[in-house]
Amino acid sequence: MRPDGVIESCLYVDDLDTAAAFYGDVLGLELVAAEVGRHAFFRCGASMVLLFNPRRCAADGTSDVPRHGALGPGHLALAVANADLAAWREHLTRHGVAIEQIIERPSGNSLYFRDPAGNSLELTTPRIWGLPEAQESRPWP
Amino acid sequence: MRPDGVIESCLYVDDLDTAAAFYGDVLGLELVAAEVGRHAFFRCGASMVLLFNPRRCAADGTSDVPRHGALGPGHLALAVANADLAAWREHLTRHGVAIEQIIERPSGNSLYFRDPAGNSLELTTPRIWGLPEAQESRPWP
Repeated sequence: MRPDGVIESCLYVDDLDTAAAFYGDVLGLELVAAEVGRHAFFRCGASMVLLFNPRRCAADGTSDVPRHGALGPGHLALAVANADLAAWREHLTRHGVAIEQIIERPSGNSLYFRDPAGNSLELTTPRIWGLPEAQESRPWP
Repeated sequence: MRPDGVIESCLYVDDLDTAAAFYGDVLGLELVAAEVGRHAFFRCGASMVLLFNPRRCAADGTSDVPRHGALGPGHLALAVANADLAAWREHLTRHGVAIEQIIERPSGNSLYFRDPAGNSLELTTPRIWGLPEAQESRPWP
């Protein structure tokens, strides 16, 4: 038995409004659901990026799901075409996002930066993991 | 500009060997790379699940990538077919994994349990997010 893939990934952010603006306006993810002060959920291709206020959701007595909530910088890599990384670098810089590191590899490059909460984000091609670069686009009702 | 999807999701675990055995043997993910005491990387469908020892990687002076490492329970949902959830429940129970919660919805159900480090894991169908259930299988060289 083996799951088909990852459908929800979480990052924890102290200032949810600032983070949600970043993920929506700068990274271009589609906001799907939000609860003020608690969470903001974004679709990213075939899966979801869930932002939570960790203090709020770890202490949430009314939550209808098992509790979670981590402190400290997490990490997420988002898939882009290797050929688009230069445009992403310009785009991020234009939005005042500092590029923390660039790694170049034969299989593809990575662009590292931080979200407003300090989480480590990476834009890279799925080819670095031997996976096809173009993700099929999927219908979103 | 918009990323194509999530290519790496991270969870942090204090006991890497125990966690890696769980993700490999019980959840059936494919181990792709590992460094003893620091990380274990698994492929899960079209993306990667990265397990890190947070104390080790947050303090890692020799790391070649920006530092990260969170403490406290994180969350990840893995995609399965809704029709397979009953079999997964039996499978987990057979491996001594306690089912923490089951949520039933018209769009699909969720099975919640913990990994050995206490992270909240969920098995659910992509349909709960309006996404197609069957993830295309992709070649893995």
